[in-house]
Amino acid sequence: MLARGRVPEQVSGRAWLQALLDFEAGLARAQARAGLISEDQAAAIGAACQADLYDVAEIAAGAAAIGNPAGPVVQALKAAVPGAPVHQGATSQDAVDTAAMLVTKRALGPLLGDLRGAADAAERLTRAHRDTPMIGRTLLQQARPTTFGLKAAGWMVGLDEAADALHNVRLSVQLGGPVGTLEGACGDAPPSDVGVAGIAGARNEAPPVALVRAVARELDLDVPLLPWHTLRGRIGELAGALGVAAGAIGKVAGDVVLLAQTEVGEVREGTGGGSTSMPHKHNPVAAVAALGNAKQAPGLVATLLSAMVQEHERAAGAWHAEWRPLNELLVTTGSAASWLRTSLEELVVDTDRMRANLDQPDPDLGAATTLVDRALEHR
Amino acid sequence: MLARGRVPEQVSGRAWLQALLDFEAGLARAQARAGLISEDQAAAIGAACQADLYDVAEIAAGAAAIGNPAGPVVQALKAAVPGAPVHQGATSQDAVDTAAMLVTKRALGPLLGDLRGAADAAERLTRAHRDTPMIGRTLLQQARPTTFGLKAAGWMVGLDEAADALHNVRLSVQLGGPVGTLEGACGDAPPSDVGVAGIAGARNEAPPVALVRAVARELDLDVPLLPWHTLRGRIGELAGALGVAAGAIGKVAGDVVLLAQTEVGEVREGTGGGSTSMPHKHNPVAAVAALGNAKQAPGLVATLLSAMVQEHERAAGAWHAEWRPLNELLVTTGSAASWLRTSLEELVVDTDRMRANLDQPDPDLGAATTLVDRALEHR
Amino acid sequence: MLARGRVPEQVSGRAWLQALLDFEAGLARAQARAGLISEDQAAAIGAACQADLYDVAEIAAGAAAIGNPAGPVVQALKAAVPGAPVHQGATSQDAVDTAAMLVTKRALGPLLGDLRGAADAAERLTRAHRDTPMIGRTLLQQARPTTFGLKAAGWMVGLDEAADALHNVRLSVQLGGPVGTLEGACGDAPPSDVGVAGIAGARNEAPPVALVRAVARELDLDVPLLPWHTLRGRIGELAGALGVAAGAIGKVAGDVVLLAQTEVGEVREGTGGGSTSMPHKHNPVAAVAALGNAKQAPGLVATLLSAMVQEHERAAGAWHAEWRPLNELLVTTGSAASWLRTSLEELVVDTDRMRANLDQPDPDLGAATTLVDRALEHR
Amino acid sequence: MLARGRVPEQVSGRAWLQALLDFEAGLARAQARAGLISEDQAAAIGAACQADLYDVAEIAAGAAAIGNPAGPVVQALKAAVPGAPVHQGATSQDAVDTAAMLVTKRALGPLLGDLRGAADAAERLTRAHRDTPMIGRTLLQQARPTTFGLKAAGWMVGLDEAADALHNVRLSVQLGGPVGTLEGACGDAPPSDVGVAGIAGARNEAPPVALVRAVARELDLDVPLLPWHTLRGRIGELAGALGVAAGAIGKVAGDVVLLAQTEVGEVREGTGGGSTSMPHKHNPVAAVAALGNAKQAPGLVATLLSAMVQEHERAAGAWHAEWRPLNELLVTTGSAASWLRTSLEELVVDTDRMRANLDQPDPDLGAATTLVDRALEHR
Repeated sequence: MLARGRVPEQVSGRAWLQALLDFEAGLARAQARAGLISEDQAAAIGAACQADLYDVAEIAAGAAAIGNPAGPVVQALKAAVPGAPVHQGATSQDAVDTAAMLVTKRALGPLLGDLRGAADAAERLTRAHRDTPMIGRTLLQQARPTTFGLKAAGWMVGLDEAADALHNVRLSVQLGGPVGTLEGACGDAPPSDVGVAGIAGARNEAPPVALVRAVARELDLDVPLLPWHTLRGRIGELAGALGVAAGAIGKVAGDVVLLAQTEVGEVREGTGGGSTSMPHKHNPVAAVAALGNAKQAPGLVATLLSAMVQEHERAAGAWHAEWRPLNELLVTTGSAASWLRTSLEELVVDTDRMRANLDQPDPDLGAATTLVDRALEHR
Repeated sequence: MLARGRVPEQVSGRAWLQALLDFEAGLARAQARAGLISEDQAAAIGAACQADLYDVAEIAAGAAAIGNPAGPVVQALKAAVPGAPVHQGATSQDAVDTAAMLVTKRALGPLLGDLRGAADAAERLTRAHRDTPMIGRTLLQQARPTTFGLKAAGWMVGLDEAADALHNVRLSVQLGGPVGTLEGACGDAPPSDVGVAGIAGARNEAPPVALVRAVARELDLDVPLLPWHTLRGRIGELAGALGVAAGAIGKVAGDVVLLAQTEVGEVREGTGGGSTSMPHKHNPVAAVAALGNAKQAPGLVATLLSAMVQEHERAAGAWHAEWRPLNELLVTTGSAASWLRTSLEELVVDTDRMRANLDQPDPDLGAATTLVDRALEHR
Repeated sequence: MLARGRVPEQVSGRAWLQALLDFEAGLARAQARAGLISEDQAAAIGAACQADLYDVAEIAAGAAAIGNPAGPVVQALKAAVPGAPVHQGATSQDAVDTAAMLVTKRALGPLLGDLRGAADAAERLTRAHRDTPMIGRTLLQQARPTTFGLKAAGWMVGLDEAADALHNVRLSVQLGGPVGTLEGACGDAPPSDVGVAGIAGARNEAPPVALVRAVARELDLDVPLLPWHTLRGRIGELAGALGVAAGAIGKVAGDVVLLAQTEVGEVREGTGGGSTSMPHKHNPVAAVAALGNAKQAPGLVATLLSAMVQEHERAAGAWHAEWRPLNELLVTTGSAASWLRTSLEELVVDTDRMRANLDQPDPDLGAATTLVDRALEHR
Repeated sequence: MLARGRVPEQVSGRAWLQALLDFEAGLARAQARAGLISEDQAAAIGAACQADLYDVAEIAAGAAAIGNPAGPVVQALKAAVPGAPVHQGATSQDAVDTAAMLVTKRALGPLLGDLRGAADAAERLTRAHRDTPMIGRTLLQQARPTTFGLKAAGWMVGLDEAADALHNVRLSVQLGGPVGTLEGACGDAPPSDVGVAGIAGARNEAPPVALVRAVARELDLDVPLLPWHTLRGRIGELAGALGVAAGAIGKVAGDVVLLAQTEVGEVREGTGGGSTSMPHKHNPVAAVAALGNAKQAPGLVATLLSAMVQEHERAAGAWHAEWRPLNELLVTTGSAASWLRTSLEELVVDTDRMRANLDQPDPDLGAATTLVDRALEHR
């Protein structure tokens, strides 16, 4: 119930391991492209960068001993490709941060899919009920008439805006070496020997920066202005955008729960919800689950924002404090999106009950309809 | 110490009162432009929309009785301009939300000024110390050499990125009427009589939407796709951006405090900081104050994100839960920015101590310098 | 609306100033009792410890310059009583932390008064509706019958338990000197000259500890085992207890709002709540305001818990990060309690509507009544 | 690294399943004791209440469908003991809440073990360094002398007080039936037939209350005054106490990290900590990991406090929002405690460096030693 949809599999131990290996493979490919290592070496490293070749539990045990998961992954990879130039010029945080961005990118796929899916369902409700009058409620008191179309359009817009913001979050590669200076990133090669020419878009860049660009390109991530080992704005922005998405989801789920109240009865979820001990009940389980997940986001966002205060060139604790909350925030927001999508896709609207609750002469709702049309045009 | 700079005066009771009055004046001017009320009426209303004409404490008392501050403001304004079409078609939340956006806009002025000022100071440090070697530190242990230029460049980039994001937050007008349908926004006038032509940019829009655009234009705010009474993505985004800014500030302030430690001694604040009981001490008061303010942001962000779950057409509590945290978040982030600016502007760098702490043969820091130059070019 | 009741006046700038002066007066009286200073000196200091004698704004300005409010208060006091042994052996944090405890104690008075007052109102509802049947609701669906007495008894118990926990929070004096060693607390006097005998309960204690006890006794605060300059468990416990109280209040307020929905109509607030634009509405303003305040607590609690990680003998930022959130947490919880008390004291219960909504054959509610009686007996 | 010690196994899916089964077994035994079902029936149910007999993944899938894990557990148990009176009179939340309390109790065992273990290590440091002088530091500046004994005593007291508070948290059984009325708890039996006499301590209680007491006794949990389905004070208190414990841990870990800085060098962790790329480094990995875990607590506490606002007789989302954060809070606090214990147990103290950093004539630290002795006596 708290790990619905396809986000959980993207943040599993195995998914993290694969992302760490993807960093190492991408680094090697980029270094080969720059002429720093041979193509054969990069190919051999790449071939060994399959999570299935390693034992997740063993890596995790090693991670606990040294304080981060990159160390044991590099060790295992070196053992798998003896003598190959693995992890050259990189530091553990380069691998872990880049992996975090890859994991996030892969988790955002299904998460945004469900968020857009929920918005699509809201759009269908908007179109179907463009002119369905209902009572508007303020402070949970009946107030003035509105339309269910306008209410559903609001849901749609809230979800869309949150999805857009989430889609635009910067997901950047991390490569800086031990203290972020890119010392040794190009090995012992003099800069003039670094094959910048082979790296698209890097023609006028200094070799170390060109190498960062090359790795980013391999992994389809952004190029940061500087290594961001302790500049955690990216994590903060991501957290904020996920928190806003969870809030947008919670608003809709909350409305569904309130409209589904026995005494209101304007909507119900089309499936499930039966209580074994009380068969007459029809619980809006999907909306409740969406809310239950969405409510967990703000505290996790606060943790990630608090963790932005990171010392010097690598933090003593605040960095480590990011890993689990980031995973959890992706899972809980993704799970909320998945449940809300289900809730809206199967929502049964009782327009008779809406009219009965309205209990007012038919109002002029022209302006409301204008707003609905405007929102639909914008999709 | 916790309310430094010029943000506090922008979020005071008087500032809120003026912002509420600005909404009413802007609404009247827009309605005059649309031919819904006369120019004279709008002028009379506008003339009465000066905070100095009213008693803040009296308004506050009225707000407590009815549950929001717009009611008593409208009442007072109506008494001041008897018979004038005040607040026509608007609801209390229209006034309060628009006022919140105006207050935010006015607070962001000095806040961004101090944030950019701190980044400017970091830029000066970056240029001055482009080639100053120092030891890089990971997990608070000496690790590998870097330059103070690169460290300061990181501060600059972190602050700049946070300022950019904050600058881009949507600040939108609110106008929707009692339940967000724009019912009555154009009074009793048939749409064809609404002077859309007089509103720049509104040529093809329906009259109620054109009116929203006109009010937005009067107040220099954005036009939302829909009334956002219970679609609080804007508040969530703003909160997230302020939280990221506070985090970026806290990172720099934390570094200053650590570098200023007696045993490290690589920087000190140029002024103040003397302890009365311990005159030999030189406390980095400004950085400490910046940190003390910055640490208060994440919890406030969480409150604002939690408050996004708002019921139906107006929330029963969650909306009211936004007001104080938004004020506090602006003040604490602004205060942090102001202190950090002071800290960096007066920072005294001890390059001898940096070299002494380095205690390593002079390293090749060419890549670091490349990064510094790249960051400077980007400003 | 967000600062109701009598808590705000207890956390004002003036109230803090008085509390700081109370510390200085209490310290002097205790030192006189121990024979470290003369009774005349203590009396002169005590006479000057009246907030009205000083300018709050001037003190605040001084606080910003030095980084805490104790410095300027001590300076002003020394100027008022030239030559008197003011603040002897104490450090700024001793004064500020003790003042925080005094402020808290004085704020908890009205806060607990309103919390108990709300519980009293719940008790009256419990007694009046011991046998009033109503429908119980799970997941906002009608489920099985219960009584309004049991519901109100739950409110009462939740509020009482929160009040009990808050009442039991440790409020301790702070006295440790510059780094918490009590160095100089007894001046230059050899321990044998310190008049421990004059301090009740201190007979077998070492003089510095006896002095702490004496100050605690003067101020009616607890004696801590050690100076707690950077051991912030007390602040964390207090924050947690306030957070639980806010949660207990929010639960009741939320139920009132839900029961007052137009479609449910089982309760309404007896006063106020009329909407100017919609006179038919009857907003449960007090419950909404209680909720709006209660929702602000968890984020503030998180800030205070985060601030527990304080460095060495005095923190560089985390301590300063406590002051405003503590004030805000007291105000928002106190305001919530005050509003809830009003809501419950004036609650109008519609038993006919309850029976109509029940829509089930009269159930056997004997066990429910047993529970109600048990809860009432326990008060 | 983020799941150290023995707490994680106590909050696993399997542990939760066993706790749910323990509730069902305890309920049956209590009902047998009260003569409501036969001893044979209770024994048959009890025999089937072994987690190994069931498939955790299958239960989890069922939980997602219906919205809580109790439903599928009861179903599976009924299938395992056909015809037996399983879960009689109970509702899903009775099982889940009681399981949460059992899981908490079992997790607090190792958690408190490590917390006390860390305090024991601090005590040993206190005794060993009762008279070791060192410089005290305020705002990270050297200030006045103290002793390492007093610093370690502060750690000990902070940890002990947090452990005491955590130990005293109420862990209560939950039993209320569908809407908390205890309807049907005693089946169809007339009260006079309920064997209250067989239940220790229940002699004068009404049968339903006596049954609650009997279940509590079977499971070694407290008896609540009322069913607490939506009175979540217990969860809030537990959260607060865990947050305070995490804060107390973080304070100590932070001090260790700061004292272990290369430039300070007063302590180092005895094991581990080597960096593969920088063998000269000696990272305080255990303290860093303790901090990294501790920093995750406040956000989770905020989530649990926010979730206290639960509707009517069962919440639509807020209840569900508790499960994961409670697990995470237990794990992260337990993990922090385990790491801190390791850090302190293996801490190497460099008293020469302490004296060298002191750089002041030997001070009179008699009062400090008095405080140390007082703290040690109190253990």
